[in-house]
Amino acid sequence: MSSEQAPAATLSKYTKRVALKTILGGSSDGGVGLTGHRVVIGGWIKSSSEIRKQPVTPQPAAAPQVVSPKDVTCSAVLQSRIPLLKSIMKVLVDSALATPCQVMPTGTCLLIEGILQQPSVQGKHVEVASAMRIHNALTWATHGFFQDQGFLHVQVPIITSTDSEGFSEKFLVTTLLSKGKKDDQISSTEDAGDLKKTNELVSQLETRQKAKSGVAVETRKLDLSKDLFAHQTYLTVSGRLHLESQACALGNVYCFGHRFQAEKSESKKSLAETWMVDVEMAFSELEDAMDCANDFLKFVCKRMVEGCMEDLQFVLKQIDKAVMERLQSTISSSFERISYAEAIEVLRQVAGKRFHSKIEFGVSLTEEHQSYLVDEIYKKPVIIYNDPKGLEPFYVRVNDDGKTVATFNVVLPKLKPNLFAGRTVIRGSQSEERFNVLNSRMNELGLQKQQHEWYLDLRRHGSAKTSGFSLMLEPLVLYATGLNDVKDVIPFPRSFRRANS
Amino acid sequence: MSSEQAPAATLSKYTKRVALKTILGGSSDGGVGLTGHRVVIGGWIKSSSEIRKQPVTPQPAAAPQVVSPKDVTCSAVLQSRIPLLKSIMKVLVDSALATPCQVMPTGTCLLIEGILQQPSVQGKHVEVASAMRIHNALTWATHGFFQDQGFLHVQVPIITSTDSEGFSEKFLVTTLLSKGKKDDQISSTEDAGDLKKTNELVSQLETRQKAKSGVAVETRKLDLSKDLFAHQTYLTVSGRLHLESQACALGNVYCFGHRFQAEKSESKKSLAETWMVDVEMAFSELEDAMDCANDFLKFVCKRMVEGCMEDLQFVLKQIDKAVMERLQSTISSSFERISYAEAIEVLRQVAGKRFHSKIEFGVSLTEEHQSYLVDEIYKKPVIIYNDPKGLEPFYVRVNDDGKTVATFNVVLPKLKPNLFAGRTVIRGSQSEERFNVLNSRMNELGLQKQQHEWYLDLRRHGSAKTSGFSLMLEPLVLYATGLNDVKDVIPFPRSFRRANS
Repeated sequence: MSSEQAPAATLSKYTKRVALKTILGGSSDGGVGLTGHRVVIGGWIKSSSEIRKQPVTPQPAAAPQVVSPKDVTCSAVLQSRIPLLKSIMKVLVDSALATPCQVMPTGTCLLIEGILQQPSVQGKHVEVASAMRIHNALTWATHGFFQDQGFLHVQVPIITSTDSEGFSEKFLVTTLLSKGKKDDQISSTEDAGDLKKTNELVSQLETRQKAKSGVAVETRKLDLSKDLFAHQTYLTVSGRLHLESQACALGNVYCFGHRFQAEKSESKKSLAETWMVDVEMAFSELEDAMDCANDFLKFVCKRMVEGCMEDLQFVLKQIDKAVMERLQSTISSSFERISYAEAIEVLRQVAGKRFHSKIEFGVSLTEEHQSYLVDEIYKKPVIIYNDPKGLEPFYVRVNDDGKTVATFNVVLPKLKPNLFAGRTVIRGSQSEERFNVLNSRMNELGLQKQQHEWYLDLRRHGSAKTSGFSLMLEPLVLYATGLNDVKDVIPFPRSFRRANS
Repeated sequence: MSSEQAPAATLSKYTKRVALKTILGGSSDGGVGLTGHRVVIGGWIKSSSEIRKQPVTPQPAAAPQVVSPKDVTCSAVLQSRIPLLKSIMKVLVDSALATPCQVMPTGTCLLIEGILQQPSVQGKHVEVASAMRIHNALTWATHGFFQDQGFLHVQVPIITSTDSEGFSEKFLVTTLLSKGKKDDQISSTEDAGDLKKTNELVSQLETRQKAKSGVAVETRKLDLSKDLFAHQTYLTVSGRLHLESQACALGNVYCFGHRFQAEKSESKKSLAETWMVDVEMAFSELEDAMDCANDFLKFVCKRMVEGCMEDLQFVLKQIDKAVMERLQSTISSSFERISYAEAIEVLRQVAGKRFHSKIEFGVSLTEEHQSYLVDEIYKKPVIIYNDPKGLEPFYVRVNDDGKTVATFNVVLPKLKPNLFAGRTVIRGSQSEERFNVLNSRMNELGLQKQQHEWYLDLRRHGSAKTSGFSLMLEPLVLYATGLNDVKDVIPFPRSFRRANS
């Protein structure tokens, strides 16, 4: 924004603009003094609507400069979070330069020069950036918490040959298929015909082999020894194992990054690419990890309430009336801690309520079960610990009962009525530090030892107890914004097409 | 560490230990007062060596508790950065419990109980964690700089169908090859024989097709429409394009994450997986991005000097005597800014120096050229801007001369004599905001429009000028640690086997 005879304006660092915020923050009248001044305003149409035919009463100072046969409200372009400005600013587009229909499409970039005048009608403001600012604040608060507590931020690899969970589908990473093999290489009809013939042949052979052996045989199998890493590599599902190795060298560590799951799901919350905070602490047991997760969640919620008030006010008005209450209660309530076995017992004793799925030891608690515990019984965040062994990955510590393992899940209260998505924001565990127990657990699960040798090495000459957890960032952003869909808080969500489209 | 009748010790939060630092930081004598007290010390052998046969003179208070037929220095396990402690602590292992050879392997985890005594000889301390702490500090300082300046931290996707650079080999991401197709599926000799036959057949067809068409045809081509995203996807090479889209919605943004390159190289500095900070600013031109890069580098160097003094002292003693001088000069010097054309002229006029490669407009400056400019001529960081159009990706802004584009590289002074690795830590540019120019540039380079439609959309209704840059984190860590090899600053480096191994 530039101005003539207007209050002093300072260019934002590194850009050719004056942020509205700096002008308004520096003036006691919230920008009212700018009325009548000539300004240039730049930005994008984020949403727009024609103003209903109400007569415009031009201000004497502004009238000669602005011709406006058909008004378009451009308040949405201002990117401003200052409510007063929104109510006093109304920029009129001169239709001799651009007709309203030209500036209507979302994404249109505008530079508008004109005289500021007080609006006769008030446009509705849509603030698309609040969710992203809350996202940023959560990230920054996360770093703040762990740095304050003396944790070191470290890196874990994205490309890995280690299958840390053993449950989920993974993305294969390869260079064998992308080197100079462009789609346009098979150009002639003849070549295409030959390729078709080859593929048919391969397909016939596959069918024959399947009939013989009873299993699907992949004849198109790639020779992975020729791949860049000379063996099969995946996108990482979790950073915990790599992090544990670093905890053994550095003490308490955390990392922040992308994690991947190649599951196809009809559920709209399923994403291939998510953000996680992984945490690992040396000389630490399950209870320590639960304490840390508890403090961490309270800390970031507190930071939200302290530092994102404007955005939370917007959320409160436009999206979710319960947002402040939810954050405040997370800060002030003491999280309930119950074991999985206790949870099963508590749910079994609920009278007059029929759950969709059976409550039985050894079976995962569903979101319905969790919701009942959190929203109906305890009415605050609940940490459910010591899950059945069969539900958890190989590296979690087996408890003395032989049936459960040292894990925990932090389940948050409901976002909105009937919304179950993303309740579990943290999953944690204590690692199995006993070499022999870990070894026999891997045998039990039939895991390939070769890819886990480096992890077993951590215990070969004894080891400290370690524990940690993973925070799923997107569900936490939903919790702080009241939005329903994780895709609303990720600018480029990597979700899957539905199976048949 | 637990103690009896010793100075008060507080457990570290979330762990079952007392950090040495907290004991020593709280005592004025730096821990000398602990001499004679019984303590338990835990940690890992990071490096070890038998003490040369020098007579040990036991302190009266300690002697009865410690039997030590053969001494092993365990100072390396202490993870302490407090020099005085290292000189007074010498923990003697009772060989009745563990012989020295049992505790020698690196990675051995120890819990040692004994009486602290003053050492008669001083072990050499190896501090493996300094590089990781400096790494952490650089990350934290990076966030600090951008958050202070009002930038928002955002996410860019790792899995992408956009080829932002167009130059480098990429990793393909697929689920077609990993779903339930385990290596052990082809078990019988008969099946293996059939597979071999199929592969031979496919190979024959490929050879025939190649002979016919003159190009290698990939008959094993995967049907990507059946892949999870229904089209070809890669690991991202750069986040700049996705970031620009967010800058147009949010103003100034940055992100921090993994970037990937599938180049095979004999050079030891080549990594498949690196960390980058990408930055993008709306309403901003090349000079603004250069200003920002300049301030950012000075800021993080300043934070290093202020906050990592202990680790830098270690670097100074053990790795690189010039580290402080280098950081201080980066903080205080004004970076030289010259255009690529000027650089060519300056290098051409160097008398009595023969460069290995020719200096010619249109050809990349080699590390030798850059080094000569930075170390011999200007003796400070140099920003070289406006590279020839032919060397840069499609999205950079074409300058008025039609021959150069709005790019810049920040080249830092040498680390050590004769070491050229990782001199360029930042690459930046202003984006081509003019739809028509961008469009014809894409035609010129023969780029597929389809995958870039979303990027072109940003300009379809006009656009603001945007500029930004990418910082390569690992070279910056080398710069601050004096280490030679990027693999030394990444816990799990993803480097390639050599071509023939």
